[in-house]
Amino acid sequence: MNILLFQPDEVHPDGCARLTDRRAAHICRVLKASPGKHLRAGVIDGPRGTAEVLHTEPSSVTLRFCARGILPDRPPIDLLLALPRPKVMKRLWSTLAELGVGRIILTNAEKVERFYFDSHVLDPAFYTPRLIEGLEQAGDTRLPNVHIVRQLKPFLEDELDLLYPGSVRRHIADPSGPILADHPIPSITLGGRILLAIGPEGGWSDYERDLFRERRFEIIGLGPRILRTETACVALLSRFALSLAHETQSVDSCAGDRSRHRP
Amino acid sequence: MNILLFQPDEVHPDGCARLTDRRAAHICRVLKASPGKHLRAGVIDGPRGTAEVLHTEPSSVTLRFCARGILPDRPPIDLLLALPRPKVMKRLWSTLAELGVGRIILTNAEKVERFYFDSHVLDPAFYTPRLIEGLEQAGDTRLPNVHIVRQLKPFLEDELDLLYPGSVRRHIADPSGPILADHPIPSITLGGRILLAIGPEGGWSDYERDLFRERRFEIIGLGPRILRTETACVALLSRFALSLAHETQSVDSCAGDRSRHRP
Repeated sequence: MNILLFQPDEVHPDGCARLTDRRAAHICRVLKASPGKHLRAGVIDGPRGTAEVLHTEPSSVTLRFCARGILPDRPPIDLLLALPRPKVMKRLWSTLAELGVGRIILTNAEKVERFYFDSHVLDPAFYTPRLIEGLEQAGDTRLPNVHIVRQLKPFLEDELDLLYPGSVRRHIADPSGPILADHPIPSITLGGRILLAIGPEGGWSDYERDLFRERRFEIIGLGPRILRTETACVALLSRFALSLAHETQSVDSCAGDRSRHRP
Repeated sequence: MNILLFQPDEVHPDGCARLTDRRAAHICRVLKASPGKHLRAGVIDGPRGTAEVLHTEPSSVTLRFCARGILPDRPPIDLLLALPRPKVMKRLWSTLAELGVGRIILTNAEKVERFYFDSHVLDPAFYTPRLIEGLEQAGDTRLPNVHIVRQLKPFLEDELDLLYPGSVRRHIADPSGPILADHPIPSITLGGRILLAIGPEGGWSDYERDLFRERRFEIIGLGPRILRTETACVALLSRFALSLAHETQSVDSCAGDRSRHRP
């Protein structure tokens, strides 16, 4: 846990919050924090800041949260993922939030089994705690939005442009594409969004690939090795996130302010 | 399973091999391969090729392997990793082989618990099948070499240069480093090796960071988010692998031969 996250309704108007769950246990047993200690904290979908430990009791901790700075930006990278097997998806939630994704769109595809959509791993009560776990690891507060798409074609044809009225760079990972180069992302403009599509095990069908092409998705390859869905997600998302972080760092360096990298 | 891998001693001089284990079950039940079918195959640490199904029986399959081309190169990227918790290491073996690593060096560090080294996950009988699983996913035959290092300092001071007598680019991932840029790897020379060092949860100590610096490791950052060991390994290894694949693709394109990407 690299940031202590509060639910918005847990923090009283005076900044105080009383925790009795795993977070309290973590603060007492792992961090061994005593009154007066300041912890890195934040409010889910709210600002980051610090939380001062006020009291500790065997089964609860009372803290005072103090926000610092503005609401962090939602990560500018979105993922359109052919729904993997529930066992894989179960693990993937926290990893996606850890890497930083603004929106997770899970879609059907020819090679996705329909019954995957009936799994409890798509229940917000299941995935929200796992997304929060990823944010706690990464030190972020912005929870990804989750969309479930049961039919890819109408989504691409009718909904995609409504969901992305502004400019968005669209990429689809597929072995048929040229390998993502060392400097293929020069036009990531700060403020724009990027949508990355990753297919099912077995890949997109020719028909699906054409649908994406028609919707102006640029095909990019991930090299000669065949990667599992999980590995491909981390490889592709982190590749774009690194470019963005580098670009942000450069902009900040020019402005003489690098503090936003160590919030 | 994207490639059927044989142990070298399983293939008779006439190319025939009889399988009775999970591979036979996979060929019959998942691939539903009948006699005459050709499968993508390879010999561990040997060449790739095809295997023709000769006979199938309820509990065994007989195939004839035919090698094609030369021994694939060992992946030019090596990993020096502070040994993570056994639970994490258990999952990591197949992922590392999937991504393509020539050598996996697992080391102690100040923030690594000593008892991790007593875990069964460091037993070759445990990890070799998992490495093979990663190769089967990636379509590769080259098994990573594994080194266990119980003391980081003498390893860096006395053994590293013996292990790498030739030129090797050395990088250490650390939040203090500049974020890995879009084009920081221009001098990956084909034939050279790259050694990437990734620290424990909690990071390298100042003392360790200095040791790496003295041994000419260049510090690189992975952005503002704090990543788990597993995620950091995939992000960093895939980042360098993509650059190498892109470079190889460019070289092949110039030579008018791109076939080595689809072996």
